[in-house]
Amino acid sequence: MHPNEFRAEAHRLVDWMADYLGSVGSYPVVPSMLPGAVRNALPASAPNAAEPMAAITRDFEQIILPGMTHWGHPGFFAYFPTGSTPVSLLAEMLTTTLGAQCMSWQTSPAATELEQVMMEWLRQMVGLPDSFTGVIQDTASTATLVALITARDRLTTPVAQATVYASAEAHSSVLKGARLAGFSEAQVRLVPVDDAYALRPALLAELLAADVAAGLTPAAIVATVGTTASTGLDPLHPIADLAEEYGTWLHVDAAYAGSAAILPELRPILAGVERADSFLMNPHKWLAVHFDCTAYFVRDVAALHRSFSATPEYLRTTHDPEVVNYRDWGIQLGRRFRALKLWFAIRHHGVEGLQAMLRGHIAMAGAFAKRLSETAGWELMAPVPLGLVCFRHRPDGMADGAALDDHNRALLARVNASGRVFLTHASLSGRFAIRLALGHVATTQAAVDEAWTLLQGAVRSAP
Amino acid sequence: MHPNEFRAEAHRLVDWMADYLGSVGSYPVVPSMLPGAVRNALPASAPNAAEPMAAITRDFEQIILPGMTHWGHPGFFAYFPTGSTPVSLLAEMLTTTLGAQCMSWQTSPAATELEQVMMEWLRQMVGLPDSFTGVIQDTASTATLVALITARDRLTTPVAQATVYASAEAHSSVLKGARLAGFSEAQVRLVPVDDAYALRPALLAELLAADVAAGLTPAAIVATVGTTASTGLDPLHPIADLAEEYGTWLHVDAAYAGSAAILPELRPILAGVERADSFLMNPHKWLAVHFDCTAYFVRDVAALHRSFSATPEYLRTTHDPEVVNYRDWGIQLGRRFRALKLWFAIRHHGVEGLQAMLRGHIAMAGAFAKRLSETAGWELMAPVPLGLVCFRHRPDGMADGAALDDHNRALLARVNASGRVFLTHASLSGRFAIRLALGHVATTQAAVDEAWTLLQGAVRSAP
Repeated sequence: MHPNEFRAEAHRLVDWMADYLGSVGSYPVVPSMLPGAVRNALPASAPNAAEPMAAITRDFEQIILPGMTHWGHPGFFAYFPTGSTPVSLLAEMLTTTLGAQCMSWQTSPAATELEQVMMEWLRQMVGLPDSFTGVIQDTASTATLVALITARDRLTTPVAQATVYASAEAHSSVLKGARLAGFSEAQVRLVPVDDAYALRPALLAELLAADVAAGLTPAAIVATVGTTASTGLDPLHPIADLAEEYGTWLHVDAAYAGSAAILPELRPILAGVERADSFLMNPHKWLAVHFDCTAYFVRDVAALHRSFSATPEYLRTTHDPEVVNYRDWGIQLGRRFRALKLWFAIRHHGVEGLQAMLRGHIAMAGAFAKRLSETAGWELMAPVPLGLVCFRHRPDGMADGAALDDHNRALLARVNASGRVFLTHASLSGRFAIRLALGHVATTQAAVDEAWTLLQGAVRSAP
Repeated sequence: MHPNEFRAEAHRLVDWMADYLGSVGSYPVVPSMLPGAVRNALPASAPNAAEPMAAITRDFEQIILPGMTHWGHPGFFAYFPTGSTPVSLLAEMLTTTLGAQCMSWQTSPAATELEQVMMEWLRQMVGLPDSFTGVIQDTASTATLVALITARDRLTTPVAQATVYASAEAHSSVLKGARLAGFSEAQVRLVPVDDAYALRPALLAELLAADVAAGLTPAAIVATVGTTASTGLDPLHPIADLAEEYGTWLHVDAAYAGSAAILPELRPILAGVERADSFLMNPHKWLAVHFDCTAYFVRDVAALHRSFSATPEYLRTTHDPEVVNYRDWGIQLGRRFRALKLWFAIRHHGVEGLQAMLRGHIAMAGAFAKRLSETAGWELMAPVPLGLVCFRHRPDGMADGAALDDHNRALLARVNASGRVFLTHASLSGRFAIRLALGHVATTQAAVDEAWTLLQGAVRSAP
């Protein structure tokens, strides 16, 4: 494709893209398609002959688009929000145009150095001390695996005799990461949580003592600031006390909530993080940039390198002693130029703009929680420190149990079937909870109001 | 940013992008910047206030661009090529606009199903039997790690008593992947290669026999089709014989060369792959799509899932029994919608168009190799089956050794200093070789000719 053909096609796409961003709220958030519908609409084999772009973009609109879940829809309240913003999209267009590999300094010096500077900006923004050095990983799953492998490789005892600790509310990537790093599920201790779904340090202490008494070696503790189910906040200081006592790697997973630490009033949720060995947050969740962009901070860079460096002959350069080669900081050799979108987004919004955005989201969540808790029949299922509200509807006289869970499961299905909003669920203390997570740049009070109206309507129309 | 502000900015960027694609050949391929130059040009802290887009894009052009290595430059002959194409760029613009997470079918049904179909198209295009099922991973590093973890988890003996085998020319990601999967370097056997830099099966057989005799369990063999240094081609049938004899996982790393199997005349380089357990190729290298896009094919999907599935409560959906949830197929939970660029690129070029592109690259490499080998003073350092030529210049009477290596190292530095081309090096049988790897969609005969002219000029100007 000649650059001028690209120019014409890209201008056409840009108009489509801008229209989409302006009208995404008119699509059903989640498509109603049945499994197989898209598969069956596509040829079983690749075409031999070239096809015109008009046919390709037509099929995109007619086949793909109706099968997409719209993560940037104002009514998208599922999982955690995605940080996609128009300014980040602009940056990604440039990143893709350059098409640079950022595995080594030499393979794109500016990309490496911008990543260093962006990690410094972020570190300061969330109040990490300068004993931490940052690197962009693709996802929190990867960054947690990186932390667990680094912790494993510090062990002087066999892996089979080591243990990993996390709260029972920790993200699935912690248990998965431990398994991938070579710990069996039986070597992972899930510590019970308190009423706010935060890890109970006293119980962690008991587990550690018992394991050490049994001849096991604690390899790592993963603390979660902002659990996926309910944004529970593990207390870092008492956990760090234990990590220090047992000489154990302390990894802090703040994938969603870490961004909130750019607000001075919420900085306390990270109190104690300065004592951790590693820390991750996902700007791609709540800090205005597209997936994928996980910021991973470590104190002992040398330990990271011992596990992850690999410099084959063909990648050696004369600059190596004086530069950073990010291939030595994670699993992948190849790396996209991810720092550019952070640079664009932070400058376009300014720290104050990002703070205002987060405060707006948190206020909307708080107001939703207040309204709900003040309405008969509804109850909050967990504290609401950030942008996530967990709740359920409880008909008069209905006690905890399968019937109440089913009632709320049905409510959720009915609300989602509207196509106007998409909420997901969690299991909290074994009880079914509906989750409303907000925080996209496109989130509006009107959409939150609509969710509330739909929820109330779903109760009225319950069979 | 309002969608209409985005529209205006994006139109401006598209013109810049098209101009860049049309003029990338006028930039120095590798910047001459010194370490720290970009870092020092940027503020040490994030701006509090929002900045205008004009300032951001100006800084992009004035600070970042002069520090970039241009992977899409016609004179970029380093490493392996990148598959960035204009049509893939168009697809990535849409992928980013949608901003969808593709971890589960429900989180974007069309993305999951398009990925299934694209993996089927690719499987057929390279001639893999339908006993293989594909999934997109980000990089070959990750896919190889996935293969090694899957192989490790099948072991019934402790990992510490297991061994991994690959040729001495295998990519650094194999040894690194083995380490990350929990094998020590001492448990990895690097099998010597023959004169064409292909693994010697007889020596692999000896190592396997000796290890088993010593009570060790062979966990995995990694065969490479198209080594990084010189595109050496490991013979798959004799290696598969051994893998079957020892009940060992056979992983085939065809990151670069796998794409060549879309040419019927080169299909034989994969002869025997049908007996492998897993196979990877990087469409982002030589099949017209942007990084990142590694196609990973496995025969035993259940084994993959045993190692990688993780379905926490909050991700369960009613569709789970009848759909594919790609979060269970790899390390990361979060996934970009990578299938779209494959769909756009394969349809836009057609299989015939992709075949013609590859044949053109291979012919250019062959012609360069022929010309070079027919010119006094130059010698090929390895066979040239694909798009990579390894060579050196040998002044009259200079024997193998440090002086000859230094002579070629200096030649390479002089040629690269021109800013017109970028070639890298390899160590082959301990001898310094210059590598010319071609295969970008922008590669032209004129650029290859210029490389040859520059190389000859560098010899003439040697001190």
